[in-house]
Amino acid sequence: MDLLLLSNSRTHGYGYLEHVRDEVTEFLAGATELVFVPYALRDHDAYTATVADALRPLGVAVTGVHTAADPVAAVTAAEAVFVGGGNSFRLLKTLQDTGVRDPIAGRVRSGALRYMGASAGTNMACPTLRTTNDMPITEPDSFTALGLVPFQINPHYVDPDPSSTHMGETREQRITEFLEQNDVPVLGIREGGLLRVRDGSARLGGVKGARLFARGAQPREFAPGDDLSFLLSGTPRFDVPA
Amino acid sequence: MDLLLLSNSRTHGYGYLEHVRDEVTEFLAGATELVFVPYALRDHDAYTATVADALRPLGVAVTGVHTAADPVAAVTAAEAVFVGGGNSFRLLKTLQDTGVRDPIAGRVRSGALRYMGASAGTNMACPTLRTTNDMPITEPDSFTALGLVPFQINPHYVDPDPSSTHMGETREQRITEFLEQNDVPVLGIREGGLLRVRDGSARLGGVKGARLFARGAQPREFAPGDDLSFLLSGTPRFDVPA
Repeated sequence: MDLLLLSNSRTHGYGYLEHVRDEVTEFLAGATELVFVPYALRDHDAYTATVADALRPLGVAVTGVHTAADPVAAVTAAEAVFVGGGNSFRLLKTLQDTGVRDPIAGRVRSGALRYMGASAGTNMACPTLRTTNDMPITEPDSFTALGLVPFQINPHYVDPDPSSTHMGETREQRITEFLEQNDVPVLGIREGGLLRVRDGSARLGGVKGARLFARGAQPREFAPGDDLSFLLSGTPRFDVPA
Repeated sequence: MDLLLLSNSRTHGYGYLEHVRDEVTEFLAGATELVFVPYALRDHDAYTATVADALRPLGVAVTGVHTAADPVAAVTAAEAVFVGGGNSFRLLKTLQDTGVRDPIAGRVRSGALRYMGASAGTNMACPTLRTTNDMPITEPDSFTALGLVPFQINPHYVDPDPSSTHMGETREQRITEFLEQNDVPVLGIREGGLLRVRDGSARLGGVKGARLFARGAQPREFAPGDDLSFLLSGTPRFDVPA
């Protein structure tokens, strides 16, 4: 498997994918074409154009999967796929409705297809969308996602703001609720951070660290460059209340 | 119908339900017993004790629905029900699993049962949970909630922070995504605000205003005391992409 999982596609002060230009260049080395999945946003054409502009300097031609007469055939023929961010529920529902969810997962697992995700697209690489930050604006057939890794990621992870008077749950409180219900580690990757999975190893990259939450353990901090391969050998257990 | 829908149960600087003591007192006038639904949090006993302590000065005895041998019988015999906040997905799943969702909805609509909700409990009064802020930590059978009102509420509504460099969606952006997918008004009620529905009228109350979002219209601001009865006559249309 060959995965590049970004917390976010836009970082404050940078253009689209600009903050991870080196990592994307390395990930796509040798590829000349990429299939983009724009389902998380409403305007598929505009979203695909943004990605095509960002990847053109790398010599990679981008095709939106929504333009294919047969989306399953498109992902089956692809050498690299990028699933963009937006609303995770809309994304997963469309992955299911178009029938591309399982073909993508199968080809990535077999090593035939490189997978790059950002934000909601990173969430899709997990067993389920249960650690998304998004509003459930539509109802997918199920919460089952691609399951490329055996743990959950929370993209756009944010630390609690000690000065806040807002009573809504902090991100850490939300993840704690997740762990009450599920025995599955959650890696909160801050904006600017990413996870690179290749040849059975997982390494944190980018410019920001990540916070790992697991049932029965104190949260642990990791820094860019840290080896997180141990996360790849776990077995997720959902709906096992503590 | 007789509804008291609170954005939140705790406001910064106040005890549990303290900021709405007058409104709760008015709402529960004449009631001596209340059935509390603690399903949104993990510890049902502790949650019920908190509510019982808060309502004891009003002379209202609180029973946790989870202590009933037959939860459906408990809500069928009740004169008032309070659905507390926490995680909306866990709440809705448990309302469905225990079979109390439809009996509560039916009795509230018939006028036999007063309904008070806070946060996730307010979200349950809407047709669906699609405007919750919560993490989807578990998967309900469907997103269909109680449908006591024909529009959606976003509790804990927060205005965008102009100084933020975080790239995750603002609340307004999330609701805009909802409106791309659904033609249903969304009332964002700020913490400290509430909606009182009675005798076919709806009025904003509490100390904070609300922001109303509807497809094809600019957001509108409303202040405590404003009449929102027009929202009760709409017909929600879900999954009709703009």
